[in-house]
Amino acid sequence: MSEEYITIDAARLENYAFEMLVGAGVPMDRAALVSRSLVEANLRGVDSHGVQLLNFYIEHMKQGCMDLHTSGSIVTESGGCMTYDAENGIGQVISDICCDHAIRLAKENGIALVTVRNSNHFGAAAFWSQKIARAGLIGMTMCNATPLVPPWQGKEPRFGTNPICMALPGAPETGWLLDMATTTVAMGKIFKANFSGEPTIPAGWAFDSEGTPTTDTQKAIKGMPMPLGGYKGSGLAFMVEILVAVLSGGAMSTEVGGVRIRTRPMRCGQMFLGIDVERYMPIEVFNARMEQLIGLVKATPAAPGYEEVLVAGEPEWRHARHRRLHGVPLSKGVWENLARTASIVQAKPPAVESQKL
Amino acid sequence: MSEEYITIDAARLENYAFEMLVGAGVPMDRAALVSRSLVEANLRGVDSHGVQLLNFYIEHMKQGCMDLHTSGSIVTESGGCMTYDAENGIGQVISDICCDHAIRLAKENGIALVTVRNSNHFGAAAFWSQKIARAGLIGMTMCNATPLVPPWQGKEPRFGTNPICMALPGAPETGWLLDMATTTVAMGKIFKANFSGEPTIPAGWAFDSEGTPTTDTQKAIKGMPMPLGGYKGSGLAFMVEILVAVLSGGAMSTEVGGVRIRTRPMRCGQMFLGIDVERYMPIEVFNARMEQLIGLVKATPAAPGYEEVLVAGEPEWRHARHRRLHGVPLSKGVWENLARTASIVQAKPPAVESQKL
Repeated sequence: MSEEYITIDAARLENYAFEMLVGAGVPMDRAALVSRSLVEANLRGVDSHGVQLLNFYIEHMKQGCMDLHTSGSIVTESGGCMTYDAENGIGQVISDICCDHAIRLAKENGIALVTVRNSNHFGAAAFWSQKIARAGLIGMTMCNATPLVPPWQGKEPRFGTNPICMALPGAPETGWLLDMATTTVAMGKIFKANFSGEPTIPAGWAFDSEGTPTTDTQKAIKGMPMPLGGYKGSGLAFMVEILVAVLSGGAMSTEVGGVRIRTRPMRCGQMFLGIDVERYMPIEVFNARMEQLIGLVKATPAAPGYEEVLVAGEPEWRHARHRRLHGVPLSKGVWENLARTASIVQAKPPAVESQKL
Repeated sequence: MSEEYITIDAARLENYAFEMLVGAGVPMDRAALVSRSLVEANLRGVDSHGVQLLNFYIEHMKQGCMDLHTSGSIVTESGGCMTYDAENGIGQVISDICCDHAIRLAKENGIALVTVRNSNHFGAAAFWSQKIARAGLIGMTMCNATPLVPPWQGKEPRFGTNPICMALPGAPETGWLLDMATTTVAMGKIFKANFSGEPTIPAGWAFDSEGTPTTDTQKAIKGMPMPLGGYKGSGLAFMVEILVAVLSGGAMSTEVGGVRIRTRPMRCGQMFLGIDVERYMPIEVFNARMEQLIGLVKATPAAPGYEEVLVAGEPEWRHARHRRLHGVPLSKGVWENLARTASIVQAKPPAVESQKL
């Protein structure tokens, strides 16, 4: 099934996002940060965390569900530990500040963990781990999210997709970068199977609405995503919830709202961890060891049906290289939704040409 | 299929393990620690990490592959960061020392990460996270292990089962405890399916020896375990490898030996992380919040086919309660193997009665 797409240069897309956010009342420096974080996700091929989120963000902003001006505040700071209250600020603004705290505290103490409450959607976790990594640290990011996923053996949602993300210092285009939801696949893959007319999805992806595992695409889209690999994914989601919500004193599990829930603040929790590699070994040695390990893993003979072994982050860097040169493709549907949102905030969509992909 | 079992009181089993280790030349305080760590795993129902490991441990010791007397040494210590060289010491001895360092450094700095190289098998990760947790900290433990698992899309082993483990402060019998390999299931479950005469195993458990996913039990036992949920499990195993092997300066991937490899040291890497909860909130508040979250998750209505929702660690605590009262069941095969090892080190098996389970 073919679908109509537009393709747009990343810088123009970022500027469009910026103008929409400014139109929604976001101060200019903050609008620049949010638009950069979203377009960065599009560049990496993670379109679920790209500019299509603006429709939800701006709706939340217009409803008065988010404080566009607060910078949040430190609740406690002690050694490498900090609790931060986002005060319902913009997720990216809070995350930027909290990554700076994590970097500062990790440089002072060798390792630091900043846990954040009362925050909002921060885009893709990778953006923040990468910020920490650029300071010469191992960066880890986690967050909770709208409850969509049942605990194993349960049939009602209790956890979000609660991602685990780690980025490493070193050249940004040659490294390793993990950013994974603790579900087998994102809901987006199930929606895509439906859109593509696939009657079935692989086992292990989803439950129906009654909590029974299903491979029926139609039942899955009305159902719930499955925790990664079953009970272990449930355990990982719970681990994330502890570090971002129990420890932060923030909203837990069903107390968390969501970007698609219009009437109340999201109140999600986030966690930023920095590890100062230089306390363990010179960064050049660490990078050389990573290069050796990546080389060893990539040299694994490919299993039947595959051409090569990829390491975490590699597909996204390939996307980024291609999209920086050739522009970001967005489905016609996403583009038109953005245009509707743009009209509400008096922003003007840039001219683009549509094409079949 | 029924199997012959013996049942033995935990204290007697621990004493038997202790005598075997002393017979193998392990100093008494060290033998006590190792035997306690193994029997603790048996009590929790994690028999793969219980006394059956003694057969391998003692073989390694007799081959001179392990240094029974070293306590290892600090390579670097700075802020909350430490690199430790196990100097091929007993895994449990090194882990006990490194947990103490993690506790001390976390109390001083709020959070601490001790990474260890040149170590040996440390039993179950849970034992060490729980030790850190008893000091009032969130405890995390990871390790690498014998390469058995192919990276996703590859067909030769590059990673061990590389577990992720987290334990929490609070009453030991009421909490939450995650200890999971980053494969879908342990090899033991595949061996058990074979032993029980099951012709097939669930999809997602294993590859055949050529790296093709299989549900054929016979092909699976000659094959390789699958990373948890596919490519994401591969990413998690790699994350563990970075924290325990790249960062420690130790053996990586195929450089790691194993308890079943007789001719050379294991050289595995380990990591112990402590987070001082009191830097974030009073421990009583943290515990009350955990109780609330566990209650919320356990109150989830059960999915079809299940009676209740369990949280991580709950099945193991149930085992422990039962086995403390009624003894530890061990298969006749394991018991006889132990007796053979005992005869090599001049230890005398305690009298037990066999029964059908």
